[in-house]
Amino acid sequence: MTKYVYNFGGGKAEGNAKMKNLLGGKGANLAEMSGLGIPVPPGFTITTEVCAELSETGNYPDSLKEQVVDSIAKAEKIMGTKFGDVENPLLFSVRSGARISMPGMMETVLNIGLTSETIPGLIAKTGDERFVYDAYRRLQMMYSDVVMEKAAGRKLAQGKGIRLLLEAKMDEMKEDRNVKNDTDLTASDLKELSKRFNEIIEREMSESFPDDAMEQLWGSINAVFVSWNGKRAIEYRKAEGIQNKWGTATNVQTMVFGNMGENSATGVAFTRDPATGENSFFGEWLINAQGEDVVAGIRTPRILSGAENSMDKVMPTQYQQLVEIRDLLENHYRDMQDVEFTIQDGKLWMLQTRTGKRNGVAAVRMAVEMVNEKMISQEEAILRVKPEQIDELLHPIFDKKNEKLYVAIAKGLPAGPGGAYGQIAFSAEDAETMAKDGKKVILVRDETSPEDVAGMNAAEGILTARGGMTSHAALVARGWGKCCIVGCGELQIDDDAKTLKIDEKVFGEGDFLTLNGTKGNVYDGKLPLITPDIEKNEHLKMLMKWVDKTRSLKVRTNAESPKDADRAISFGAEGIGLCRTEHMFFEPERIIWVRRMIVAKTEEERRDAVMHLLPFQKEDFKGILNAMAGKPVTIRLLDPPLHEFITLDDEQITELASELGIRADELKIKIDALHESNPMLGHRGCRLGIAYPEITEMQARAIFEAAIELQNEGIQAMPEVMIPLVGDVCELENQRKIVEKTANEVFEKTGKSIAVSIGTMIELPRACLTADEIGKVADFFSFGTNDLTQTTFGISRDDAGKFLPFYIEKGILKDDPFAVLDQNGVGKLVEMGVKLGRSTKPNLKVGICGEHGGEPSSVEFCHRAGLDYVSCSPFRVPIARFAAAQAQIKNPR
Amino acid sequence: MTKYVYNFGGGKAEGNAKMKNLLGGKGANLAEMSGLGIPVPPGFTITTEVCAELSETGNYPDSLKEQVVDSIAKAEKIMGTKFGDVENPLLFSVRSGARISMPGMMETVLNIGLTSETIPGLIAKTGDERFVYDAYRRLQMMYSDVVMEKAAGRKLAQGKGIRLLLEAKMDEMKEDRNVKNDTDLTASDLKELSKRFNEIIEREMSESFPDDAMEQLWGSINAVFVSWNGKRAIEYRKAEGIQNKWGTATNVQTMVFGNMGENSATGVAFTRDPATGENSFFGEWLINAQGEDVVAGIRTPRILSGAENSMDKVMPTQYQQLVEIRDLLENHYRDMQDVEFTIQDGKLWMLQTRTGKRNGVAAVRMAVEMVNEKMISQEEAILRVKPEQIDELLHPIFDKKNEKLYVAIAKGLPAGPGGAYGQIAFSAEDAETMAKDGKKVILVRDETSPEDVAGMNAAEGILTARGGMTSHAALVARGWGKCCIVGCGELQIDDDAKTLKIDEKVFGEGDFLTLNGTKGNVYDGKLPLITPDIEKNEHLKMLMKWVDKTRSLKVRTNAESPKDADRAISFGAEGIGLCRTEHMFFEPERIIWVRRMIVAKTEEERRDAVMHLLPFQKEDFKGILNAMAGKPVTIRLLDPPLHEFITLDDEQITELASELGIRADELKIKIDALHESNPMLGHRGCRLGIAYPEITEMQARAIFEAAIELQNEGIQAMPEVMIPLVGDVCELENQRKIVEKTANEVFEKTGKSIAVSIGTMIELPRACLTADEIGKVADFFSFGTNDLTQTTFGISRDDAGKFLPFYIEKGILKDDPFAVLDQNGVGKLVEMGVKLGRSTKPNLKVGICGEHGGEPSSVEFCHRAGLDYVSCSPFRVPIARFAAAQAQIKNPR
Repeated sequence: MTKYVYNFGGGKAEGNAKMKNLLGGKGANLAEMSGLGIPVPPGFTITTEVCAELSETGNYPDSLKEQVVDSIAKAEKIMGTKFGDVENPLLFSVRSGARISMPGMMETVLNIGLTSETIPGLIAKTGDERFVYDAYRRLQMMYSDVVMEKAAGRKLAQGKGIRLLLEAKMDEMKEDRNVKNDTDLTASDLKELSKRFNEIIEREMSESFPDDAMEQLWGSINAVFVSWNGKRAIEYRKAEGIQNKWGTATNVQTMVFGNMGENSATGVAFTRDPATGENSFFGEWLINAQGEDVVAGIRTPRILSGAENSMDKVMPTQYQQLVEIRDLLENHYRDMQDVEFTIQDGKLWMLQTRTGKRNGVAAVRMAVEMVNEKMISQEEAILRVKPEQIDELLHPIFDKKNEKLYVAIAKGLPAGPGGAYGQIAFSAEDAETMAKDGKKVILVRDETSPEDVAGMNAAEGILTARGGMTSHAALVARGWGKCCIVGCGELQIDDDAKTLKIDEKVFGEGDFLTLNGTKGNVYDGKLPLITPDIEKNEHLKMLMKWVDKTRSLKVRTNAESPKDADRAISFGAEGIGLCRTEHMFFEPERIIWVRRMIVAKTEEERRDAVMHLLPFQKEDFKGILNAMAGKPVTIRLLDPPLHEFITLDDEQITELASELGIRADELKIKIDALHESNPMLGHRGCRLGIAYPEITEMQARAIFEAAIELQNEGIQAMPEVMIPLVGDVCELENQRKIVEKTANEVFEKTGKSIAVSIGTMIELPRACLTADEIGKVADFFSFGTNDLTQTTFGISRDDAGKFLPFYIEKGILKDDPFAVLDQNGVGKLVEMGVKLGRSTKPNLKVGICGEHGGEPSSVEFCHRAGLDYVSCSPFRVPIARFAAAQAQIKNPR
Repeated sequence: MTKYVYNFGGGKAEGNAKMKNLLGGKGANLAEMSGLGIPVPPGFTITTEVCAELSETGNYPDSLKEQVVDSIAKAEKIMGTKFGDVENPLLFSVRSGARISMPGMMETVLNIGLTSETIPGLIAKTGDERFVYDAYRRLQMMYSDVVMEKAAGRKLAQGKGIRLLLEAKMDEMKEDRNVKNDTDLTASDLKELSKRFNEIIEREMSESFPDDAMEQLWGSINAVFVSWNGKRAIEYRKAEGIQNKWGTATNVQTMVFGNMGENSATGVAFTRDPATGENSFFGEWLINAQGEDVVAGIRTPRILSGAENSMDKVMPTQYQQLVEIRDLLENHYRDMQDVEFTIQDGKLWMLQTRTGKRNGVAAVRMAVEMVNEKMISQEEAILRVKPEQIDELLHPIFDKKNEKLYVAIAKGLPAGPGGAYGQIAFSAEDAETMAKDGKKVILVRDETSPEDVAGMNAAEGILTARGGMTSHAALVARGWGKCCIVGCGELQIDDDAKTLKIDEKVFGEGDFLTLNGTKGNVYDGKLPLITPDIEKNEHLKMLMKWVDKTRSLKVRTNAESPKDADRAISFGAEGIGLCRTEHMFFEPERIIWVRRMIVAKTEEERRDAVMHLLPFQKEDFKGILNAMAGKPVTIRLLDPPLHEFITLDDEQITELASELGIRADELKIKIDALHESNPMLGHRGCRLGIAYPEITEMQARAIFEAAIELQNEGIQAMPEVMIPLVGDVCELENQRKIVEKTANEVFEKTGKSIAVSIGTMIELPRACLTADEIGKVADFFSFGTNDLTQTTFGISRDDAGKFLPFYIEKGILKDDPFAVLDQNGVGKLVEMGVKLGRSTKPNLKVGICGEHGGEPSSVEFCHRAGLDYVSCSPFRVPIARFAAAQAQIKNPR
């Protein structure tokens, strides 16, 4: 016979903390506590398997009833009372408890076993009629709501829930009795009330309130299991990645009462402060109350110690016992615990312990302090903190409690984490002007383009209607660590009228918006922010020291300016993994030469124009190589299609034509000819350098001249030249020859030399499939997983906004593959690329420079795939370092 | 010591026909002939390895000289003469001979060994002074040209070649002597001429003509090896796919003379007629001439038999011997041979035999007749014909000799094979009008769109400036077997002025152009065409019978109309592998509902519009399922992005808006919102059906209702529903559910049912990578290698024209991957897809429906990869059948 029910209590237990999958977190911990000798009200756990079977077949396993009856008897024996007994009745609570905690998502029923038969017995036993009727009215409220209404799928005629009806009746009675608190109602009031409750229930449900203990118990057990498949629970699981098939366990536990008078109490506590991480016992409690009273906030709870009415003063013995249990639990679980306790008539009972939730600051502090206390190892400390909690420490954030009070007016893709508020600007120029006037600005655009960068920089946050996680706005914002939400389809922006419409509400320039870039939420108005000071966080510094000691994966950054490079170094970057060179082309004194290059009619004309760009590029490279002195800098040669540099309106064309000394219509034809149906799959990447070798030559010359000039100044420049968008080894061979030749020319001319490293970006499926051939010609690979995701999925980053959110919402894709590396598809290509590449070049250096390089699960994948480094935007460097350390601990290499 | 030199002659040989890689085709066949006892002038072959070593190191192997000297002695012994001997001199020819014949691409020198010392001896021996001086002036002309000028890389001062100068001198002498033919010059004329030749050579070359036999020999050997790396030879090899590293062998052979008087002759012959394939001995010969005279066309050659002056009459003994040798050779080689022979003073010598080139008609006829003659097996017959020769039999073609007389004025991509001429039309409407007037039309456009199809149909040929091998024009034309050239960048089309400019020449409407769609050549004017009659070609019918018996790969067609389907069946199609459904949407009475569907604001509106399309689609499907009764028809659900259906100018928008009863600006916003940066990677394929399930539902309903209605008429409809662009199994699951549900509804309503087969197009890398998961949910896979190539390479079909031709020209890619399946990259994904798919569904049916399905090397790949069928445009079906049979023979499965 399969064992479906596990008993606990009386200083022993059939389960333990390791059996979370079967008993759920709560059940496993109750068993564990009981096994530790901690006073836990006896009871039993019905396993998650029962939930799974019920979900699947609609029925309970045959032997369940029998096992439950046995277990009831065991609890009765420990307590010396009897469930449903007329003289000495035992009451039960029924609570859910899944493998991973889903707070508030499932149901609870308390005080089960109170019937017209047992009530008198309990009154006789406790001598407290008021307490018993109070417990009964609570059972009525919960049971009618949870079991009779929700679990049964009833809709009441009036549209209101039964709970509201009963609460209204109770309020009516309080008014009638002219009292304020529930506790002011007398025993006879409550007795009267319970009668009225039963009338209302019978009227509304066409069914009377069950007056049989066993019926109440099974109704409650069933309601808990049913609540696993409630809408809210399902949504929560989807958001948290909890699987439906896991199911919940149900815990049936003897009731103990904190509301049996002034010698009774109830409370919740954290073994350390969950908000700051401080090692102090932190909790709240109430005398003469049940647990829900503490949480519900009807009465203001007291603190545990240090106040006049705190527990250490009022109930010193029990407080001492609680502190001992706290130490016992923390030492046993080696982590901060979140406990519930009840004192019934002077006796302390522990109702629950579980690992406590904590924010980022607290998580880091606790982890570091527990190492110092020799409670855990450095590796355990690293695993205790979630990567996203590191993120919390790097960006301004909202106080979670505070944010809950607001309703998001729109939702987009969380492209740049952190929070920001400011006044709306509809153009980059306006944003700059407003920022100069000292205003905080939120730049609101359909999408951004390279011309907008100054305005983006001036803004506190960026909000766009279009684009995906790797759109221009997202990339730029992330690079700066700026709050950004993209692809927010609900925005209706009228640039001319300078209005933003969301639903029916219209915002104008200067109106306040607040963005939560970590979640993608947009709020009306101004929400208060908390700005962390990373420099002063000594716990974080210590943790990151351990992180760097632990990880084997190097972490570089994607940066293209000395300023970005400096910032990235301060975040711990060990080099640049992707220095794009195209944004450098947009500056006004350069763009004209870029355009001359594009419209050149002959190779000579083109070469002349290109060579005008040489001094600019050399200065760019000197700046960034200098900032990264002694660290490798991977410079990617020109990548975007040329038409990106020459999208002009008619007026601009006329102007440019006269500047270039050609006819406007001629120029227009030239520009039109550059048009591409699918530019992402067009004439770009190394295809440019192959068609126009002088571009490659100029860039290579700029790189090596810059490096040699720095060398002359005693600065160690370590450039690596990266050829983009290679799909066939011949492309790399072609470009490699040009770069090598140019390098040698520079070396010959200067009489100096540096190491030449030439590699390629692996960003096309074909590059992965033929990586053995490409590996022979490359000194390094850098996986460009943005583009690789794009072609592997056949999804354009720029257009994905039309259907990708819908896909994720419908569960067709679990994650946005541009944010989280698709290990199942793209990942296979990456693994293939690494394996094939190293099959012909065993010492091939391999990294990743796509946006995934800063996403924890993707970093872990990169570690497992054997990469040498990841590269990400500066603000993600700490998270990547952290994720790399976790990956090393989980998969040592 | 490596053997570099192989002797032949005197009825034996060191080599044989199998040693082509080492001895080249000519050398191997000379050895083979000699081994067969056929009279071959003795000599020796210097191996291809020597060429390779020379190319690589610039030097000959050390032992070569010695081996050559030995071999000269052997030839001398057989002939009883001596190279360089004063009294009885032996002369040599030196000829190239590569593994694969490269006619006219490399050099030849004859009469080597004539010097001031050997000339008198030869005169004494032959008694023919004129012959000897004629031979000497030929040596002078060839040697000075080939060895002293070309191989030495000399540029003469006057810019003319030495050969022209010498020919001019000879013409001058003929004029001076007042004679017409070379043969009219006397011995003393020629003696005088040779002196003048030597003067000119010395003057131009600053070097005197070598007067040493050995120097002449080595100069010639060297010139042959050097000519392997000549520009023309390299280009030829590139075009023919011959590898540079293979090298050429050099054949040094005793000279025999057909020009030693009226008892001497020379000729070339084919053992069967290379133009018709008829089994008759076909050749040309000349009395008193050297081989080059026959080829050069200075004198008109005679035929071998049947004329008054033909060989059977004039030299009956030698003719009889030649006929016997012909039979011997054909029976030995079991194929048609192309031979050269010389009769020196009455003795027949065979100079060369090789497998003869032939056109498509001849290849088919010979292959079939040789089977009937029991010379070869059916399988050999199939391997004897090249797939492209089958193509020749299906389309109008140019007479090759004729085409050579013309120069192409422009070159594009060969998108639709065959030839066509006609008068230029610049719009589809004009094309229709002109065709109605009985004119043959060439439609000239920048690119074509679905609205142009009527005009395209009316035209004989289509010529576009843009687009690649899978552009709209290419796909449509190929589907119709229509001649088409796309991506012809040299065209400058002005639609308004109705002019086409190529270089400086301007064409107007009605001017004639001729297209060679097999090569991509555009000609000015009207070239004569040959139109084959496939129905009357009994040899082809027989061959194709054997083909169908042999192959294991099924061949389907891509068709979307009953007319196309009928044609494809006549070409042997065994089903439809790809029936696109989107073109059906463009017809005027439908497009309005498509547009209503697109602009619908609610699901109800959209459903209403979609359902208006149901009767149309049902009729479409009935038509095609009926045409293909009893054969499977794979119907692909809607694939293109919706904006393709609604690209309108402002006026059309206004019109449509009023039709739809909405505001024009509202409609414009809606249309603008559909715009995509990279539509190929956008909201298309199953992403449409997932976002708008009612489209899938409507199409499924149309398919199954059509099938059931046909069933009621006693017609077996076998639809297969294909979901496009699946990248994740969840997409297929989603769409499969809708199709299954709809099918069941139709079955329930009608009380009838048919087999439901639902599969997917595998056209994204991720689909291949996760084919194990997808396989579980699919009844079949069909590789859409057009799109798969696009994403694997990251190259847009529509934009590839900007750099792909350049890539192929530069040798970065060997073939256009949209024409020839890239086995190295895309092929790996296909293999992975097949393997993974069948790992979870062993009986998964797998096909290919990309354009590669009709390309022979790709068909062979598909066979090897284990596919069940290929599908291609109707006109390519015979070639695909044929290629499938060849594949089966080469790789039996």
